[in-house]
Amino acid sequence: MVRAGERTVQLYRSWVGRTLDEVETPAAVVDLDLLEANVARMQDYADAHGIALWPHAKTHKSIEVGARQLAAGAVGLTVAKTGEAEVFHEAGVERLLVHHPTYGPAKWDRLAGLVDDGLELTIALDGSDAAEGLSRALARGGGSAGVLIEVDLGMRRTGVASPADAVALARRVDALPGLHVDGISGYPGVRVPAGEVRPYLAGVDATLRATRDAIREAGIRCERVSAGSTPTRYMTHETCISEMRPGTYVFLDRMEAPSEPDGGLDACALTILATVISTSVPGRAIIDAGSKTLTGDRHPDGGHGIVLGVGGSLVELNEEHGYIDLESAATSPRVGDRVRVIPNHACTCVNLHDALLGVRAGTVETVFPVAARGLNW
Amino acid sequence: MVRAGERTVQLYRSWVGRTLDEVETPAAVVDLDLLEANVARMQDYADAHGIALWPHAKTHKSIEVGARQLAAGAVGLTVAKTGEAEVFHEAGVERLLVHHPTYGPAKWDRLAGLVDDGLELTIALDGSDAAEGLSRALARGGGSAGVLIEVDLGMRRTGVASPADAVALARRVDALPGLHVDGISGYPGVRVPAGEVRPYLAGVDATLRATRDAIREAGIRCERVSAGSTPTRYMTHETCISEMRPGTYVFLDRMEAPSEPDGGLDACALTILATVISTSVPGRAIIDAGSKTLTGDRHPDGGHGIVLGVGGSLVELNEEHGYIDLESAATSPRVGDRVRVIPNHACTCVNLHDALLGVRAGTVETVFPVAARGLNW
Repeated sequence: MVRAGERTVQLYRSWVGRTLDEVETPAAVVDLDLLEANVARMQDYADAHGIALWPHAKTHKSIEVGARQLAAGAVGLTVAKTGEAEVFHEAGVERLLVHHPTYGPAKWDRLAGLVDDGLELTIALDGSDAAEGLSRALARGGGSAGVLIEVDLGMRRTGVASPADAVALARRVDALPGLHVDGISGYPGVRVPAGEVRPYLAGVDATLRATRDAIREAGIRCERVSAGSTPTRYMTHETCISEMRPGTYVFLDRMEAPSEPDGGLDACALTILATVISTSVPGRAIIDAGSKTLTGDRHPDGGHGIVLGVGGSLVELNEEHGYIDLESAATSPRVGDRVRVIPNHACTCVNLHDALLGVRAGTVETVFPVAARGLNW
Repeated sequence: MVRAGERTVQLYRSWVGRTLDEVETPAAVVDLDLLEANVARMQDYADAHGIALWPHAKTHKSIEVGARQLAAGAVGLTVAKTGEAEVFHEAGVERLLVHHPTYGPAKWDRLAGLVDDGLELTIALDGSDAAEGLSRALARGGGSAGVLIEVDLGMRRTGVASPADAVALARRVDALPGLHVDGISGYPGVRVPAGEVRPYLAGVDATLRATRDAIREAGIRCERVSAGSTPTRYMTHETCISEMRPGTYVFLDRMEAPSEPDGGLDACALTILATVISTSVPGRAIIDAGSKTLTGDRHPDGGHGIVLGVGGSLVELNEEHGYIDLESAATSPRVGDRVRVIPNHACTCVNLHDALLGVRAGTVETVFPVAARGLNW
């Protein structure tokens, strides 16, 4: 039997050359013009400021989208999971940053195997267990990997708590066979009001500088300062950050669109194409895209996505139903009408799909299998 | 290249015979003893009261789990999406109820194709567009399908609004070639406080009776009254409902465990096995399971799942990180420790995974590919 993921990829490929009116719904659609503009705009910014771009591939998990980012000038790709690293390495990506405190003998062996196979691997770590495990695994093949010491930038998630802790960990890591400290890393992902982003980033910068300087003073190399998220990406040059790894910028979504100075919602490359399947209940139109298609991730303002054109809010989702409230709608959709929805969160939305339709001017041009989907082990 | 879903299935199959200590994390684990007990308990209830059981396969999307439900005595399986219907039909399931107002010529053709191939199909509908489309598609092969007229039971989602509307639709459907009205259907899924479930269900029963009687009085057959959700499942015999289609009962989860009179959390068959990957931040343990593993679906009491044994709350999720707050924890986990988490919502959690590990007494006994995952088109 054809497996589920392969079934979707085969079906989607049969739609190449057709218009969006002819494909089945729900489907995740990527506007290729907008995708390419988003890739180019981020790369232009990075190039203009001499910042190395390491896009986070968690957003798309797609070999083809990653290839576009690399072709535009990205130095390498960032991933979270070992399974993602394997998929992108197999696809020929030469340089990967694994930004997750990877734990487990099997995972360390798998990462070491990629190094032995030619991958230029950097890993961000915040503890010695993972460093020691990876070092042991690397020793068998004689390979080596760079390490970024991860620093907590206020998320209270991962990362060491102080420059002194960073120095202590850097000393232990640098002494381990097969590992060399290349720099530091952090994730400035604290959600602050728009007016407080710059002050927050100034604090991030101070922490990163203090940590970098302390490691250097200890006689350990600290060339790379890796940070950056989509919300703060255009302020990166105001800091000591030498490399950035935004993810969502490639598609944008309802959450991150406001971080785009010119484009906003018009720059969102990812939409869910859905069909109105019921108007039985007055004041409502129900679409065939629910939380298993759009993501259940919330937006602080409420609602589950922006319904383009119609204007009504997507007030509720069940697994396979989306509820459009027609009170604020510009039109009254009928059963069979199609709508497009900008999801709240592109990363978790894409993670629900086995493939994305790459569309230009309303016609399917290509298919992006979400090749690393589900590989969270 | 091996596709992502197949890669997970192959890996998981290599773990059969191993203990849970030996598998990689995160992983979705099904306790087979609890699964079998949940299947048997629901079937026993249905049998005791002469109610036909049509489990909703959206929860597991797995051929093997569906086969266990059918072997125990379920009459057929319920699905939402055409792609799910195809997977279960290919697997040999003889009787399916598609409970979604399916819209689109391609989907109607696919459903008609399943009928032509021998499937005994029932579909729940709330409008004439879908009925007419399916009728046209069925006409080509000469097959026929049963229809349940869907009635709104307070969800304000899908379903006709009154007995009069139900009669009008039943008349139109019954006149269409290839379709025959078999009964009515509804989804009593309104979330009410525990003490108000029985009064709510009494109202549901009144609506269903009035609708059923009105259709019969119009001279149209109305034998089947299909309804029932996991929260209301053990009260079904107090109503006119003749067939029920709970889904979550098969695994249970944090949301639905309280509906289990004896078992509660101890009856939850699905857990996420995860590893502590960072304890850098004081008072926190970070696990390698986030919203892409557990589901971002919220619980009214907050939090993202129940961490068994440890006792701390899972206070926050990012995509690949779960934050355990250790303030209320019974123990202080260390990096490398493993935990098991009962997810908030089994259906959306399983939908993130390509396969589930079937475990008995701590040893992997079998693998359940989530065969219909991603087939929402």
